Amino acid sequence: MRARLRFTEGLQFVGFSETGHAVLMDGGPEAGGEDSAPRPMEMLLMSLGGCSGMDVASILRKKRQALSSLEVNLRGERAQEHPRRFLKIEVEFVVRGKDINEEAVARAVELSMKRYCAVKASLNAEVKASYKILPE
Amino acid sequence: MRARLRFTEGLQFVGFSETGHAVLMDGGPEAGGEDSAPRPMEMLLMSLGGCSGMDVASILRKKRQALSSLEVNLRGERAQEHPRRFLKIEVEFVVRGKDINEEAVARAVELSMKRYCAVKASLNAEVKASYKILPE
Repeated sequence: MRARLRFTEGLQFVGFSETGHAVLMDGGPEAGGEDSAPRPMEMLLMSLGGCSGMDVASILRKKRQALSSLEVNLRGERAQEHPRRFLKIEVEFVVRGKDINEEAVARAVELSMKRYCAVKASLNAEVKASYKILPE
Repeated sequence: MRARLRFTEGLQFVGFSETGHAVLMDGGPEAGGEDSAPRPMEMLLMSLGGCSGMDVASILRKKRQALSSLEVNLRGERAQEHPRRFLKIEVEFVVRGKDINEEAVARAVELSMKRYCAVKASLNAEVKASYKILPE
């Protein structure tokens, strides 16, 4: 998999993905950026949410669970000292829908964390997953 | 650091970063997505390029190197088997400018990789960095 990025000004970069999509990243004013786009560490955190969220959505679809909504909430704890890596990340899946089977949700989350989520497996951080099922 | 994502349809997710920026992620048609946005693993790869690129840009600015352009090229090798994590990532910095000091570039890349880049430090993958200096 390939990607390339082009520096624009300040701290802003345009990233081009292999599938042909562009994204912006920027730093905050305190670091010399313009806050025009997410920080790279935020992109990393969101990539984990997208990856595991897609797993859970597609597994629950196969299990014929009728979701009315699915949200992923993430909280990352970072080291105090440089390079300030993520030490621990909590991922919470909030599933809404009618007659959602709790076992199906638990299994979908487990499969994503243990087997499918490539972003999670690429991280050097403790990842803790949980879920919440809410009525429609 | 917090983030949240909302599932839309297919495999598309909208991510919201703590600094207030939204990004889209999507899967490809082969997986049930619509290819409307980068894959999560592409986001991860680009986050590494953005993080290390911002370090290199800002260190070279402090060292008063006049860049006319800076690009970051990334290539990630993934495991064949699920969860298909990144095994190895090559990051190449392509610096253009007048009278660019090679030692300054080498040092900027080294500082990013060893000390500053929080995305790199959060990854469980071998990361190899290189650079190329081209005339303006």
